[in-house]
Amino acid sequence: MRILGVDPGLTRCGLGVVESRPGRKVVLVDVGVARSAVDAEVATRLHHIEIEVERWLDEHRPDGVALERVFAQHNLRTVMGTAQVSGVVMVAAARRGLPVTLHTPSEVKAAVTGTGRAPKAQVQQMVARILGLAELPQPADAADALALGICHLWRPGGAAGRTAASSAAGAVPGATAAQRAWAQAEAAARGGAR
Amino acid sequence: MRILGVDPGLTRCGLGVVESRPGRKVVLVDVGVARSAVDAEVATRLHHIEIEVERWLDEHRPDGVALERVFAQHNLRTVMGTAQVSGVVMVAAARRGLPVTLHTPSEVKAAVTGTGRAPKAQVQQMVARILGLAELPQPADAADALALGICHLWRPGGAAGRTAASSAAGAVPGATAAQRAWAQAEAAARGGAR
Repeated sequence: MRILGVDPGLTRCGLGVVESRPGRKVVLVDVGVARSAVDAEVATRLHHIEIEVERWLDEHRPDGVALERVFAQHNLRTVMGTAQVSGVVMVAAARRGLPVTLHTPSEVKAAVTGTGRAPKAQVQQMVARILGLAELPQPADAADALALGICHLWRPGGAAGRTAASSAAGAVPGATAAQRAWAQAEAAARGGAR
Repeated sequence: MRILGVDPGLTRCGLGVVESRPGRKVVLVDVGVARSAVDAEVATRLHHIEIEVERWLDEHRPDGVALERVFAQHNLRTVMGTAQVSGVVMVAAARRGLPVTLHTPSEVKAAVTGTGRAPKAQVQQMVARILGLAELPQPADAADALALGICHLWRPGGAAGRTAASSAAGAVPGATAAQRAWAQAEAAARGGAR
């Protein structure tokens, strides 16, 4: 299963394609950032991001899109742009009949680091380790996009997550520390062991 | 000049096409509402709205799109959907090379009623009067879409607004009360008479 993770943003929109392999292994397919000029009209910027996202969908033919769920936070101006980008990405996926799944930032952090409050640097490090990359994915938006894809594949019921989630916490042979922590958190949330 | 006004919304997206005629007259071309099922996935809902907006753009071939500027207000959940719809509408226009202009709700209210704090019913009444409609445009989202289009055509520098704005406040022969109030507000804002 191949997933396009998208960290939506008007100035930098993180894009990361990951694929699940047997044994809960996840591999990197491609990673990058779609950018738009800050001095351009919002409509033009959104259109530019759309063209890039369409290009990635055409080139990598993912089975689904994992998108960060946008919350209204501190900077309302940024949030509006982020929400608009997420809308554009959703429609690009829907046009192709691809399922779109939204994941919260804390869900994504918990999936790759074991804690929902991990700093960005820790997310980058774990993404690099999980995907076996020699260097940290740059910028943070690109790492977040990969983390979204990994989170999606590892989620309970996901292509690579079913085994981890249904096993006793931490008992999956070969699971990474993050996968064990994720399985534990899942089990605890479901009222299972611990 | 023909303008598609859009009052963005995920459940009801108001659509109104108006056209300017000589003498600052604005006429109705079409009005309606694009709806999406509340129980559908957000991506599917956005896609559905997009299809409708595309259909209106194809059918009415406007020269531009006037869109309500979205602010983060009370209901954050609604605001996210509204922002996403506005992003989708902007891209649909940008794909066709159509200019998109954003207008704030108070700007639109001031344009058609003379006060930025007019209630929805007053906006509906003034829209009906300006366009010479026998009945009030329903629902309010449809009336708001028409008001956006009128606001856009009447704005200073707009197809029908140039004369009104550059004339002395209230001195435009044949101007409606709303147009006079709008011209006055404009003149006051520019440090002109009054």
